[in-house]
Amino acid sequence: MKPQHQYRYQDINPIINPKSVAIIGASDKPEKVGHVILKNYVDVGFQGQLYPVNINTEPNGKIMGHTAYRSILDIKKPIDLAVIAIPAELVPKALEECGKAKVSGVVIVSGGFAEVGNQKLEDRIAEISRKYRMPFIGPNCLGVMDPRSRNDTLFLPTSKIDRPKIGGVSFVSQSGSVGSSTLDLISGEGFGLAHFISYGNATVVDEVDILNYLADDPETKVIVYYLEGVKRGKEFMEVAKRTGNKKPVVIIKGGRSPAGVSAAHSHTASLAGSAEAYEAVFRQSGFIVAEELDDLLYFAKIFETQPLTTGNHIAVMTNGGGHGVLATDALYLTGLQFPKLEPSTEKALRKAMPPIVNIAMPLDIGGEADAQRYINALEILAKDPNVDAFLIIALFQTPGADEKLANTIAQFASNSKKPVVVVSTGSTYTRSHTALMEAAGVPVYDDPVAAARSLAALIKYSKFRNKMIV
Amino acid sequence: MKPQHQYRYQDINPIINPKSVAIIGASDKPEKVGHVILKNYVDVGFQGQLYPVNINTEPNGKIMGHTAYRSILDIKKPIDLAVIAIPAELVPKALEECGKAKVSGVVIVSGGFAEVGNQKLEDRIAEISRKYRMPFIGPNCLGVMDPRSRNDTLFLPTSKIDRPKIGGVSFVSQSGSVGSSTLDLISGEGFGLAHFISYGNATVVDEVDILNYLADDPETKVIVYYLEGVKRGKEFMEVAKRTGNKKPVVIIKGGRSPAGVSAAHSHTASLAGSAEAYEAVFRQSGFIVAEELDDLLYFAKIFETQPLTTGNHIAVMTNGGGHGVLATDALYLTGLQFPKLEPSTEKALRKAMPPIVNIAMPLDIGGEADAQRYINALEILAKDPNVDAFLIIALFQTPGADEKLANTIAQFASNSKKPVVVVSTGSTYTRSHTALMEAAGVPVYDDPVAAARSLAALIKYSKFRNKMIV
Repeated sequence: MKPQHQYRYQDINPIINPKSVAIIGASDKPEKVGHVILKNYVDVGFQGQLYPVNINTEPNGKIMGHTAYRSILDIKKPIDLAVIAIPAELVPKALEECGKAKVSGVVIVSGGFAEVGNQKLEDRIAEISRKYRMPFIGPNCLGVMDPRSRNDTLFLPTSKIDRPKIGGVSFVSQSGSVGSSTLDLISGEGFGLAHFISYGNATVVDEVDILNYLADDPETKVIVYYLEGVKRGKEFMEVAKRTGNKKPVVIIKGGRSPAGVSAAHSHTASLAGSAEAYEAVFRQSGFIVAEELDDLLYFAKIFETQPLTTGNHIAVMTNGGGHGVLATDALYLTGLQFPKLEPSTEKALRKAMPPIVNIAMPLDIGGEADAQRYINALEILAKDPNVDAFLIIALFQTPGADEKLANTIAQFASNSKKPVVVVSTGSTYTRSHTALMEAAGVPVYDDPVAAARSLAALIKYSKFRNKMIV
Repeated sequence: MKPQHQYRYQDINPIINPKSVAIIGASDKPEKVGHVILKNYVDVGFQGQLYPVNINTEPNGKIMGHTAYRSILDIKKPIDLAVIAIPAELVPKALEECGKAKVSGVVIVSGGFAEVGNQKLEDRIAEISRKYRMPFIGPNCLGVMDPRSRNDTLFLPTSKIDRPKIGGVSFVSQSGSVGSSTLDLISGEGFGLAHFISYGNATVVDEVDILNYLADDPETKVIVYYLEGVKRGKEFMEVAKRTGNKKPVVIIKGGRSPAGVSAAHSHTASLAGSAEAYEAVFRQSGFIVAEELDDLLYFAKIFETQPLTTGNHIAVMTNGGGHGVLATDALYLTGLQFPKLEPSTEKALRKAMPPIVNIAMPLDIGGEADAQRYINALEILAKDPNVDAFLIIALFQTPGADEKLANTIAQFASNSKKPVVVVSTGSTYTRSHTALMEAAGVPVYDDPVAAARSLAALIKYSKFRNKMIV
């Protein structure tokens, strides 16, 4: 294996944020992958230039209404990104032409390379890439999706997969299926996407290049990663450390059990290595490890919206006693705890709350509590220096909980310098109110345990960052 | 404390499945709890007789169009259930009148008893209940909800909380807030409800009576329980054991950490006791312990729909490689494993699958797999005696996955004598297809980890039952 070129931010950026895209294999035939890709670019409203390329194009031919070309060499205009979606054996010639046309970068979605035993063909395209110093993502991948520039190489119709809104979370997946299905899940969540990258065989651009890019990317506030294994261990350790010191990385590792390692190997031919070795790298880099897909989303939204804090004293307020108990268990079992309130805080709460409210943690303000009672208590607690963060339980089944309460909590959270998470469990009525809070940047959870685990992740990473900076 | 009467199935049943209900405190004033309760009975379409009772009723007065009564003694007809929703200090007199009117059972929703320090008032109502051998649920509770008889004492308007469909899961909650919000969540899930019981202070009818009732109840296939603590330890141990040997009980315990125990004590005045003591009772009774609310729902749906099995060899089939890896990790980390397939199975799969499919576990049948390829593989695997259960991953973002696939899996699962769970991760398009499978009685999960954990719970309980029977 020849030494790999290390790609910089500016080398990768044309693939992620291109101003012009050639789609090699574009077609009017709906069953072709190249058709779905071109249609998606049109459907999601890509802002730049689109050039369909198909070897069977007639002179003056058009594909989906766009002037089409027989070869990328015929375009004669600067091209940032070429997307290749043609049979594997035709890829080397097309890639060679991309090099000659001085394309900045390429996404090869076609499969049929090392993943089916065709290592020779994969070596050949790697060589062409090196010759022209032209990086490519893939082959055998979904490629990239970017809600800002609307660059979208996914060969999945918009009818089958929802596209997330714009935000600060970049999601990287070594697996296309985990990538596309989790992307679809994310679209239903209260946070937005910076970039999505699914890089398949990682022949040229690999996890090292991608982490390096996202570490420097100003749009990326949080990185969420599904990883099966890395090929360049030493370089990965370096870039992981650099990235973890700049922004939170939430990672889920495929291949943590021996059987899973073997499944991962046959899936992406990754050197999955020992689970312990990976865990050590993640720990040293301050990566937050998720055990399940749900946690990827839970952690992503707290990191995207909430400030860091190293304090682990969480004020819990609730309009339901049982939820207060569950939240208490969840906090203490994840290593967090209640603040010891200042006497002045207790006195002010005693005065502001009805006599029936027991002034203690968790603060159960009663099933009849309304927006006014919530904000009265929150404003008092916010002044207490012993409170590091808030876990607010707002159950919308209760009579006093309404749109005003959702707005009140959203406003309190927006102004708070301390992290705030909300727990609201329920269906139709509740969800219309949690959507309102999430749109305002408040992370809302169904379950007190998920909320506590997310707070614990935030605090763990805050401590890591704090230690590094000092 | 006087020895408590042990209520039998037939003592409790009139409270759960009444043919006639008197609502004491019914009112035309929308802000009254008694108004909301009466309105809910009307809105959900209660099948039996309804008698509003309000001390301020004029002669020939009506409430919400129903003939109203000043006292329950004026009704002069057999009454199965009286729901009491009046100020605490008026409850003893009303309860005394219920006894005189030979009411079978009572739900006291009113608060203001032991939970606010008014132990004397609570002792008084307990005494009246004993005098007339008339059990009551409450006080300080939501009471009962039954989608079959449409008995519904919840003082929560249907606009704020969705009502679940009819099914085999009975949900018991010591906490009103956990009860109502989780009930609301359940309504969005793919399983139905037998009974909901929220019993508040448990003054007369307590966890022992309720478990005893549900153990004998033919409509209850699965019991889901939020418990903070029990007052009668010895009796609870006995009834727990009897219940666990008849049907699966999924339990979440509030008060597992020392701080949680203290929060639970101030919430329901329960003797929460040591977490270890409870765990021992649960283990001896074969109860499945859930750590979070989500798991309550995940486990409920597998127990409601799938047969028991003691074998832990799970066949995994997928149209996405990464999901196969995650499912493998999840199985092995929860103590499950792959089957060793018979040579004849491997041979048949080799013949039925395209050459690119690697005949191994997890069986990755390819991103382009359609319903036909799924059923071909499933029918072969179903014949293998080494396969104990199925974990089918069907990602609907892929081109071959459509309504036909959902129907095919639903039909396979319905005919299968071995448990089947499905994993489908996604949003709009995916959810319309998971709804289809869930309506056919297939438990579907977003996350391979949740699916594996649910299978592990099913197998754990199956082993417990198997050991007991042998």
